[in-house]
Amino acid sequence: MKLPLGFRYAATYAGIRKVKKDDVALIVPDQPARAAAVFTRNMVQAAPVKLAKENLRISKGKVTGVLINAGNANCATRTGERVALASCKALAKALKSRPEYIFPASTGVIGVELDANLLTAPLPKLVEHLDAGHFQAVAEAIMTTDTRPKIASEEVQFSGGPVRIAGMTKGSGMIHPNMATTLGFVMTDVVADAEELEEMLRPAIECSFNSLSVDGDMSTNDTVLLIASGASKVKPSGKERKQLQEIVTWVMESLAEQIAADGEGARKLIIVRALGFKTREDARKIARAISNSPLVKTAIAGSDPNWGRILSAAGYAGVEFNPDDIDIELQRVPVCRGGLAAKYDEDELKQKLDESEVRIRIVNRKGGKGEARFFTCDLTEGYIQINGSYRT
Amino acid sequence: MKLPLGFRYAATYAGIRKVKKDDVALIVPDQPARAAAVFTRNMVQAAPVKLAKENLRISKGKVTGVLINAGNANCATRTGERVALASCKALAKALKSRPEYIFPASTGVIGVELDANLLTAPLPKLVEHLDAGHFQAVAEAIMTTDTRPKIASEEVQFSGGPVRIAGMTKGSGMIHPNMATTLGFVMTDVVADAEELEEMLRPAIECSFNSLSVDGDMSTNDTVLLIASGASKVKPSGKERKQLQEIVTWVMESLAEQIAADGEGARKLIIVRALGFKTREDARKIARAISNSPLVKTAIAGSDPNWGRILSAAGYAGVEFNPDDIDIELQRVPVCRGGLAAKYDEDELKQKLDESEVRIRIVNRKGGKGEARFFTCDLTEGYIQINGSYRT
Repeated sequence: MKLPLGFRYAATYAGIRKVKKDDVALIVPDQPARAAAVFTRNMVQAAPVKLAKENLRISKGKVTGVLINAGNANCATRTGERVALASCKALAKALKSRPEYIFPASTGVIGVELDANLLTAPLPKLVEHLDAGHFQAVAEAIMTTDTRPKIASEEVQFSGGPVRIAGMTKGSGMIHPNMATTLGFVMTDVVADAEELEEMLRPAIECSFNSLSVDGDMSTNDTVLLIASGASKVKPSGKERKQLQEIVTWVMESLAEQIAADGEGARKLIIVRALGFKTREDARKIARAISNSPLVKTAIAGSDPNWGRILSAAGYAGVEFNPDDIDIELQRVPVCRGGLAAKYDEDELKQKLDESEVRIRIVNRKGGKGEARFFTCDLTEGYIQINGSYRT
Repeated sequence: MKLPLGFRYAATYAGIRKVKKDDVALIVPDQPARAAAVFTRNMVQAAPVKLAKENLRISKGKVTGVLINAGNANCATRTGERVALASCKALAKALKSRPEYIFPASTGVIGVELDANLLTAPLPKLVEHLDAGHFQAVAEAIMTTDTRPKIASEEVQFSGGPVRIAGMTKGSGMIHPNMATTLGFVMTDVVADAEELEEMLRPAIECSFNSLSVDGDMSTNDTVLLIASGASKVKPSGKERKQLQEIVTWVMESLAEQIAADGEGARKLIIVRALGFKTREDARKIARAISNSPLVKTAIAGSDPNWGRILSAAGYAGVEFNPDDIDIELQRVPVCRGGLAAKYDEDELKQKLDESEVRIRIVNRKGGKGEARFFTCDLTEGYIQINGSYRT
């Protein structure tokens, strides 16, 4: 894995989590970096989310350090803003930078006070341990109920030389709308200003994190950051910028896919494609309704080719269509043609549905060019077990 | 239980279900009755739904027989319309009535052809067995994954004499939006025309079946029928009609509550009340978002007073509010005051959350007079077990 130049990483256990597992992490560019971010649209926003927004606004997208903690969302707490502010100040001091250049992010339980000392005490030492090789350690520190770290990277050759993009993320519960927190950090060593990064981030988010059933309705802490060190010294041409856009999207799609595949209790990644609908927005609504349907997700868990549930979910997505025009495929096997049962070998299809990746394809024969893809996972007993006792 | 006068009931096993359990049922008024109904708004509508609508339109709300089958939704099938039509014709013949006066309703699996003969063959005999005492048998015949029949009744004294209302319903899966089929049949012996029944049904549905997280987005077969035999010979006055409206609403609320309490795998009924929001619609959105949140539902299953999840669900409901104005109570115990943790005895509250009925109350201190109530249930491993292998 070729990491972007100009970034160093560090992680440690600070006592915020109950279990001894790294819970404070840093991503620090060698030089002030440029960044763009998207945040939750929840009415309830964690203190670090508000502060990260404010800092980016004041610094005009300049970032000298990213400070992440797991184990406590620092949301709906009396001391939330003070703690977030104190932690940025402490890191700025350790980095000889300014608090407005720090980008804070938290994940964990809501409504429990976060002890600022736990977060600030280890920072001076942590800064000393910063290392370009500790990327993986940070990816592990941000995990909550994730069973594995989620990372993705790409390298691209531009006329000025190679440019690298590497991202890490953490899972968001069941990957149902509005569930647990998603944090994503995507580093690149390309030369870009905050505005260019912003332009790159929006469409990439749409196809990745916002196509995870997290769309439009995020948790109190959801944050995805795109940050450029400029250390490659490569400034892409107009054409290359398009290519970069595509590669950033790939990296983020891969991260989103990994989140879905590692949903709480999930045994299967489900990829839903909706095609032939009037608009892209219509196709998204259809794909999202299918992705969010517990009946569809439990059927897939049981390798049950119950396409009636898929058709029914499409039917309540709020999109007009004629059921007679609908074809549905499961694992590329036609199960519904023109709204009616197709002939297929049930045992064979059941076997195909036992695979760890399940593809659902729904096509409107007479609709249009609108298409969309959504990532989700099956719904198993494991989800209930994890979430029935998360806090305790 | 005092049943409305002027109705007879019958149920039998016709071989539509795989297990030997009654699957065809009749509700037959002694004289042509008047009726109003609400149907699913799913784009995909079962053949019996389309035909029931059409019949009611042609007959101007006159009904001589209700024909219900379980085990097959008769939806997304090649022969759907023919089968529904044939079944209405067969019952009309047996009742010496007209097919347009028959109200058909089906529930069960989608996309599997329904053999018309199975449905029509037992009808002549079934009509012979009609009896006012077989109400309970019909309530049992319409069950799918329900663990118990769901019935409710009331009697009211009007100046002209007593009037009775009795309803039965069947569960709708997880009681998540857009899940399995809900069927509801509410009988009364009041004298009312179809228009008066329509006026009574709409607001009653709003507070009951549409406050079950089934709101706005129903399954392919959802149907609720209000049918009046007129056998009491009591025509309510204007004031009494208001009273009747209230009582019909009670009966339907009780049915909705029973559906929630018997949700698939559910151990607990959850009643969510949202108060102090700008409009009733805002309060409904908040209550619905909380009711639909798998994270909230699993927390309640685990008796975990995780109010952060409740606040977060409210936050993505699409309603503007200031989190600092929000109070949350669980089992009447304040757990969140002004968006922050309240002090409560966790062990004591956990015990209270072990009860079979859990009340969540969310209040916006500075909002307005909008309030709403929603019924839902906890989310347990049982739901996954039932739905991972429903078809097989």
